[in-house]
Amino acid sequence: MAKRPVRTHCPISFALDLFGDKWSLLILRDLLLKGKKTYQEFLEAGEGISTNILADRLIALKEFGFIEKRDDPDNGRQVIYSPTKMAIDLLPMLLELIRWSYRYDPKTLADKEFVDQVRNDRMELERRLRKSLVSRARSP
Amino acid sequence: MAKRPVRTHCPISFALDLFGDKWSLLILRDLLLKGKKTYQEFLEAGEGISTNILADRLIALKEFGFIEKRDDPDNGRQVIYSPTKMAIDLLPMLLELIRWSYRYDPKTLADKEFVDQVRNDRMELERRLRKSLVSRARSP
Repeated sequence: MAKRPVRTHCPISFALDLFGDKWSLLILRDLLLKGKKTYQEFLEAGEGISTNILADRLIALKEFGFIEKRDDPDNGRQVIYSPTKMAIDLLPMLLELIRWSYRYDPKTLADKEFVDQVRNDRMELERRLRKSLVSRARSP
Repeated sequence: MAKRPVRTHCPISFALDLFGDKWSLLILRDLLLKGKKTYQEFLEAGEGISTNILADRLIALKEFGFIEKRDDPDNGRQVIYSPTKMAIDLLPMLLELIRWSYRYDPKTLADKEFVDQVRNDRMELERRLRKSLVSRARSP
């Protein structure tokens, strides 16, 4: 949970104080929707995050309780990250954001089938995404 | 619509490039959920936005197509702002964000009754909010 002071406890402001910057939500996107889990994988996201910003954001996301860090059981020299329940619970918000951008960005990379699912059966999509995240967190 | 270059057309990244800073969404919150419409009212939000950041954000929000600006018919010296359809369509995302913060901020100011409505009947709540925003935009 938040360890830094927040501006107010308005629910919008609170959320922005935790991840309202240009990068944190992209790392959470990679974890929640793209199955990424290593520093290197986050670094390779198309937006061109720099190494120092990525390192800084990972520390903050861990401090705030969004991610957990552990050694990769398959490769002792590698650290892997996984989203906590608090992060997984951002899925409904992320799905609505995707739906919005799909509507307003003529060049959107959002997948039509995915957006149709958000629109028509968000509960089922959420259930499926949550299930795959939870089973991934359990197994290496 | 966006006139500045965006990093990528990933739907999350696109949205963040338009309003992913610590302030823009608070101005949209004030417009969409608190009935505020003047510079002075935005300035008085509890988070302590500074005059130059507020002026800068209002310009960007207008440029991106989130807000419209007109003279107050009741007071020629005053300018009033209203949200566009593109901004109003952020309501589902904002409601999910409120629900999330209500769950994770022990000191949240979010209203339990409001959050219960988001949880139990989001469609009806959205319909009501949209209706009041549209009728407000029409009348001075």
